[in-house]
Amino acid sequence: MTQSVSTVPLIELGRRAKVAGHVLAATPGAAKDSALNLAADLFEERTGALLGANEIDMARAESAGLTPAQLDRLRLTEGRVRAMAGGMRDVAVIPDVVGEVVEGYVRPNGLRVERVRVPLGVVGVIYENRPNVTADAAGLCLKSGNATMLRGSSSAIDSNRAIVSCLREALSKVGLPADAVTLVENTTHEDAIAFMQLDQVIDCLVPRGGHSLVTSVREHATVPCVIDGDGNCHIYVDATADLDMALAIVVNAKTQRPGVCNAAETLLVHREVAEAFLSLARSALEGVELLGDERARDLMPGIGAATDEDFATEFLDMKLAVAVVDDLDAAMGHIARYSSGHSEAIVTGDLVNAERFCREVDSAAVLVNASTRFVDGAELGLGAEIGISTQKLHARGPMGLRALTSVKYVVRGDGHVRT
Amino acid sequence: MTQSVSTVPLIELGRRAKVAGHVLAATPGAAKDSALNLAADLFEERTGALLGANEIDMARAESAGLTPAQLDRLRLTEGRVRAMAGGMRDVAVIPDVVGEVVEGYVRPNGLRVERVRVPLGVVGVIYENRPNVTADAAGLCLKSGNATMLRGSSSAIDSNRAIVSCLREALSKVGLPADAVTLVENTTHEDAIAFMQLDQVIDCLVPRGGHSLVTSVREHATVPCVIDGDGNCHIYVDATADLDMALAIVVNAKTQRPGVCNAAETLLVHREVAEAFLSLARSALEGVELLGDERARDLMPGIGAATDEDFATEFLDMKLAVAVVDDLDAAMGHIARYSSGHSEAIVTGDLVNAERFCREVDSAAVLVNASTRFVDGAELGLGAEIGISTQKLHARGPMGLRALTSVKYVVRGDGHVRT
Repeated sequence: MTQSVSTVPLIELGRRAKVAGHVLAATPGAAKDSALNLAADLFEERTGALLGANEIDMARAESAGLTPAQLDRLRLTEGRVRAMAGGMRDVAVIPDVVGEVVEGYVRPNGLRVERVRVPLGVVGVIYENRPNVTADAAGLCLKSGNATMLRGSSSAIDSNRAIVSCLREALSKVGLPADAVTLVENTTHEDAIAFMQLDQVIDCLVPRGGHSLVTSVREHATVPCVIDGDGNCHIYVDATADLDMALAIVVNAKTQRPGVCNAAETLLVHREVAEAFLSLARSALEGVELLGDERARDLMPGIGAATDEDFATEFLDMKLAVAVVDDLDAAMGHIARYSSGHSEAIVTGDLVNAERFCREVDSAAVLVNASTRFVDGAELGLGAEIGISTQKLHARGPMGLRALTSVKYVVRGDGHVRT
Repeated sequence: MTQSVSTVPLIELGRRAKVAGHVLAATPGAAKDSALNLAADLFEERTGALLGANEIDMARAESAGLTPAQLDRLRLTEGRVRAMAGGMRDVAVIPDVVGEVVEGYVRPNGLRVERVRVPLGVVGVIYENRPNVTADAAGLCLKSGNATMLRGSSSAIDSNRAIVSCLREALSKVGLPADAVTLVENTTHEDAIAFMQLDQVIDCLVPRGGHSLVTSVREHATVPCVIDGDGNCHIYVDATADLDMALAIVVNAKTQRPGVCNAAETLLVHREVAEAFLSLARSALEGVELLGDERARDLMPGIGAATDEDFATEFLDMKLAVAVVDDLDAAMGHIARYSSGHSEAIVTGDLVNAERFCREVDSAAVLVNASTRFVDGAELGLGAEIGISTQKLHARGPMGLRALTSVKYVVRGDGHVRT
């Protein structure tokens, strides 16, 4: 049932996934949910086996000299296995999006037109050494009616095999094709490129990982992609901002979890409130390295100078670039120049400025008087998240199950012909 | 106001288009509609100049030995100029889609979330020698708040210059940036590739043209694309079909306009009605070359044999491949194997088969008891069409103004921070 697939060529794995995807597309929600719940049970029942497989990966990774951060991402613990299982059950209870009628109307000639939500087919996921991505991504793809081809890193191969084995067994037990979840075990760089170019098979490729993975996908992929890009997020404190509110938002956005994409990286302050606000901010942000433009340095003597490159950098760290600006236009100009198009917030009491900021800032999410940290699938109520898109086509911002679907026209007539 | 741009480097043209796109994104609908109507007026007022420019292109094309079909596509006439003007006015009266609130809700913590429709930014259009595409594409992009970079073929350069000059003048006259419509005058193959890779500028590239253009875009483009692919469309006549209805639909789908992508290319007939139906069809399809599989040839002696390649071909001609199938599953199997994912129709009286066909056939459009010729933006009520997508990401099927937009999250709080 859960055979090894390592000797099967990629294209053959792909063909099997394609067939499995067709079956899943026509599978009612209840069967998909049963498979998700059963996989959760298997993760918990086999915690020992999962941790054992992970130990092999960890030992190999330690002797290969991975960094402590990399080792941490690779590590499975009982708690992390429980979280993986919980994640599957959480996805199972989200309402099914497949079959949703997005739009429906009757044409003047009586033709009945519907646009119906359908799965994409086969979703490829390419990621790094976090084994929990294996379960999370497969769960979201299964829920949205897609077959998944999972291409993790070689460092996590034993963990991934053990996780995928549970998933495939769960699928088989509820009568669904095990090939709906396929682990790609060939993990050289050339194999990764072949995977990114599997045009006949992969309907959508989702990279989950850091900057170098995304860059490689941008360079090599020929299949359609949805890219979870960088988050160089800005907060602009306007002249009319409630400074206490602004302070709470800046501290939250910078320090609550600095290593994630929706953390703030640059603070822009209107010159009229710069002196008052930066003096508050400097003490509230103790432990954060501040880098300022000339005017910010004048108001916070002793901090480092922010270079052009600093303003363009997603620090993912306790580090914040600061600039003083003349007005809203200067703030939006700065954002247009340096932002990666993820999330930007304004703190203001001025209605016109709030509306202009929302309309004119060209990012996946714009926020008024709220922390950028809310730009996240769970916080925005999507139920689950496969990533946060900074591209404009197909999906933008936090991507839930609907980002893993397409829409099909269904047209019904009574012998209609065109004249 | 409408200066020559031929000596300006591509990247500089792109930068100007980007700036113009930002202006358009915040421009109310009335100003965009004024520009569209004014451009229509200018096309009509300057019909003589447009035809004169076109004559230069035509003379060059004739001496270069273009085919009669190519020359016809290149030719402007008074009627075609009037149609271009009419097209602009038709687009002007469609309601604006920019600013549409696609979804809106309040989170349990009081955060107000909206998803708002926004322009893409800069849309690149690469096309062949039909000068009317210049006006049509620019009109749709302008209406949807996007700047356009138009890269037509060198054969149409004088016509395109004259058309773009009217468009830019109309923009300037209503106070919008002329650079919102930019003609890329460098038309070598290398320039085309540079255009397809203008990542810093082009938010979406739309190829409008034949198979070789699309293939080149698939191979070279690094910017995001929406591709108007081939239409190898099928009609399946089920055992329970009303044969008169089926005949009318097949004749309409094959012969009403055989050179377009939503024309039928393959007829599949259930074996139980094959004898009766194919005898009717053979006489009704006089003038259409029929190519059959073995069973179809048995019932229509004397017709040619359909090869595998025939079944995979979009003839765009008075030519139809025919196969007799055992049942719905065999019909859907044939479609899954050969279809380009554009449009497929079933003619049936059977509810279960109709529903299975709609659910299981994986194409942009599926039709029940209606001609594939209806799969078209105007026929499906989109108001305007930039193409018909056969891809699954972003837009699928006929693409109207919404296909030229993205969606942005707008999140409003009262000092919300994440805990």
